Amino acid sequence: MTTAQPGMVSLVGAGPGDPELLTLKAARLLATADVVLHDDLVPTAVLAQAERALVINVGKRCGRKNISQEQINAMMIDYARRGLLVVRLKSGDPLVFGRAGEEMDALRAAGIHFDVVPGITAAFAAAAALHRPLTDRRNASSIIFSSGHHAPGSLHQPASLAGASRVIYMPGRDLKAIAAQLRSEGLSADLPCVLVSRAGQPEQQIVQTTLARLEGVPAVPAPAILLAGEALRDSQPAQFAELASRALTTVGDPQSLEL
Amino acid sequence: MTTAQPGMVSLVGAGPGDPELLTLKAARLLATADVVLHDDLVPTAVLAQAERALVINVGKRCGRKNISQEQINAMMIDYARRGLLVVRLKSGDPLVFGRAGEEMDALRAAGIHFDVVPGITAAFAAAAALHRPLTDRRNASSIIFSSGHHAPGSLHQPASLAGASRVIYMPGRDLKAIAAQLRSEGLSADLPCVLVSRAGQPEQQIVQTTLARLEGVPAVPAPAILLAGEALRDSQPAQFAELASRALTTVGDPQSLEL
Repeated sequence: MTTAQPGMVSLVGAGPGDPELLTLKAARLLATADVVLHDDLVPTAVLAQAERALVINVGKRCGRKNISQEQINAMMIDYARRGLLVVRLKSGDPLVFGRAGEEMDALRAAGIHFDVVPGITAAFAAAAALHRPLTDRRNASSIIFSSGHHAPGSLHQPASLAGASRVIYMPGRDLKAIAAQLRSEGLSADLPCVLVSRAGQPEQQIVQTTLARLEGVPAVPAPAILLAGEALRDSQPAQFAELASRALTTVGDPQSLEL
Repeated sequence: MTTAQPGMVSLVGAGPGDPELLTLKAARLLATADVVLHDDLVPTAVLAQAERALVINVGKRCGRKNISQEQINAMMIDYARRGLLVVRLKSGDPLVFGRAGEEMDALRAAGIHFDVVPGITAAFAAAAALHRPLTDRRNASSIIFSSGHHAPGSLHQPASLAGASRVIYMPGRDLKAIAAQLRSEGLSADLPCVLVSRAGQPEQQIVQTTLARLEGVPAVPAPAILLAGEALRDSQPAQFAELASRALTTVGDPQSLEL
């Protein structure tokens, strides 16, 4: 009688899309995986690291009919029970806006051994591309991460968070609603806002504007992220010149832009 | 006449301390750097990646007399002007609670070319070690990052952020003040709180408790991070058994702990 090698699942952060922003551990697991189940937005250059794996797109946006969360859970469990090394590859960090809570609950319920490998989240890749900090003891002592689907709905932000940098994942096409929300929280019209599409990838696009002009910003390709905060204010205009070699759009009348 | 190769500075995230959680890009830059200027909390295992560099601890906690931020800025600029490849290595991500804003301003003012390489922040490494998500569509739609030095001081958290996961960097030894602050924001006494020391490193320690008991938690070795939120609640007690092979402390009467 042969005893099958027990399988396992690694929930792995793919980072923002640049293969060099994979962690060493993520790269090693991809290279040794038997099966990779990946989100739709993980680019080919990252998937290419999985040299010997069966690579399956389980993304909810893929052209084929939608794969439900329950089906993804069942696939992870099924492959692991066959003794395979399964990488569940998620954009950015697996524990941020990725339904990993539900996937880990399913794996625990099924008795499947798993581990979690953190990844670079889009907010950090976007800030790195902008050469701006997310916190700064001079003007931003905290950061709030939210998503376009669940934008905060309060009318007043507490004074203590007024200086927080705001990071909004998946802002979607309706920037008008997000702009109205941020204005209703008391944030100022001239607050620097930057929309970054495909942060850290060759197709990266950066749109810099202010909160007042945010609603007029055209949609950019997914995945995108919206950053807003005083820490993004450009103290030295030369900064964006450095970025000019990458796609960069300035929305609004450049003469009157403070950014 | 010889023309010196122009130097440059890379602000690089060292991640949480596990060398395998360096990005491929960070590992490459460390391996090729001429000079590495690092924070005090970057462990030896990470610094060992800098095989050919002059490695200098510019951490503010080092035994020798303090090095000021101005001195660090001057060192980066001086080495870069000599044509050297300088890595400014910061724990976690360089743009989160790391004074990178001031360093980038100094580099811009000096006309030194620089880039920024994001890193895995401690919050993500801690959550990965806990096998718990930081957001969950069932109970946590946002995350608030703050630091122990600048804990929010409002009396009321807006309703929209009541379900936010809270991440507090550098909580320090005075957990009583942080606990009082979180209680004053309306967070419940039984809210799961987890203190993680040296997340992802061999010496990792995890202390799980509730907000009511947080003030009684003994200090743990730096760097530490405090996580608080419903997303950390252990729906299946077996979870922490998996972690028992790592240092794990439960504070309070185990019989009455809901975690």
